[in-house]
Amino acid sequence: MVVKRRNRLLSLESILDAALACIDESGRLTMAELATRLGTSPSSVYHHLPGRAAIIEALRERVGATIDSPAVDDRDWAGAISAWMRSYRRAMAAHPNLIPLLIAQPMTSESGLRSYDRVAGLLSRAGVAEADIVPWITAFDSFALGSAFDLTAPDQPWVVADRADLPALGTAVTAGPAGRRRADTAFELGLTALLEGVSRSIEG
Amino acid sequence: MVVKRRNRLLSLESILDAALACIDESGRLTMAELATRLGTSPSSVYHHLPGRAAIIEALRERVGATIDSPAVDDRDWAGAISAWMRSYRRAMAAHPNLIPLLIAQPMTSESGLRSYDRVAGLLSRAGVAEADIVPWITAFDSFALGSAFDLTAPDQPWVVADRADLPALGTAVTAGPAGRRRADTAFELGLTALLEGVSRSIEG
Repeated sequence: MVVKRRNRLLSLESILDAALACIDESGRLTMAELATRLGTSPSSVYHHLPGRAAIIEALRERVGATIDSPAVDDRDWAGAISAWMRSYRRAMAAHPNLIPLLIAQPMTSESGLRSYDRVAGLLSRAGVAEADIVPWITAFDSFALGSAFDLTAPDQPWVVADRADLPALGTAVTAGPAGRRRADTAFELGLTALLEGVSRSIEG
Repeated sequence: MVVKRRNRLLSLESILDAALACIDESGRLTMAELATRLGTSPSSVYHHLPGRAAIIEALRERVGATIDSPAVDDRDWAGAISAWMRSYRRAMAAHPNLIPLLIAQPMTSESGLRSYDRVAGLLSRAGVAEADIVPWITAFDSFALGSAFDLTAPDQPWVVADRADLPALGTAVTAGPAGRRRADTAFELGLTALLEGVSRSIEG
């Protein structure tokens, strides 16, 4: 019994390994390509997981396991959300090609839902109006995912050398940070602005 | 002469049409798949455009042509940036699969560079420190692109029906907007928060 269960788990894991490799390399997931990579048939894959959406949801669960769950800390809700956002961006930056696939389907992943339930609870107890909680969570989400993609950008996203006709951008690029520091500074600026936006919505 | 030039332009347009169709459908662009779609050889494609990066840059120029250039309006820099952001998000939402390809390579597109030069000029004349302009532009960019992706999300991104164990998220989903209104409300909340963040950085 134990051996059988272990084999089954190994097999599920190997399917998810191969699916994530497909997505990381090509940006897409088809059951045919996945089966080819595993040296098996699509029907063997369906034996373990009911289809493409279930595989993507299992990958949400797997990548989600590398994201720190938001702390239940009502005295410092902004700190709890910041730590979650930093961890979320870092985890998704490791698999940017997975992002569009995750966005495109409803979340059923248990760890994912529990994390969002915690964020919703933090915002609610902080005093955010109930109708504004989903919009704020969406704004945080969009910023985290856009910022994860930004980590795939080249060191200098704009080619402005010797471009006297782009004076403002040229000056800004010369004066500003480049590479990873550019991305990290931007993420922290935007995160602070979003959290202050939440604070003002509570006071207002 | 006129006819010849016109043929060449038509051909370039047909390459870009096919490249955008490849990306929209599969999320990727390979010269082999592009040539197959055009019923020609990769070398015929190279005759018009020097390679994959040049095609992606030409698509940046094409999609960029549908984005309203930021107004040069120093009395209302926040309004000028808001209008640009709304137009930018709308244009990219029409081709979300193009976003990762655009982020991954340096921008040489003329209309793209001119738009960013205008945004940099607006922020500079508003009083943003030169070293902070690229980070703020990056934060706006990440939020616009993440929000464009969010427009591809299902009407309800979280499956919380009959989930008493997710009370905060369940309440928030019931109380909040769904579908396009969810996405639009989130975008406007986040955009306002980012612009107020810029304002505070000027005052501070």
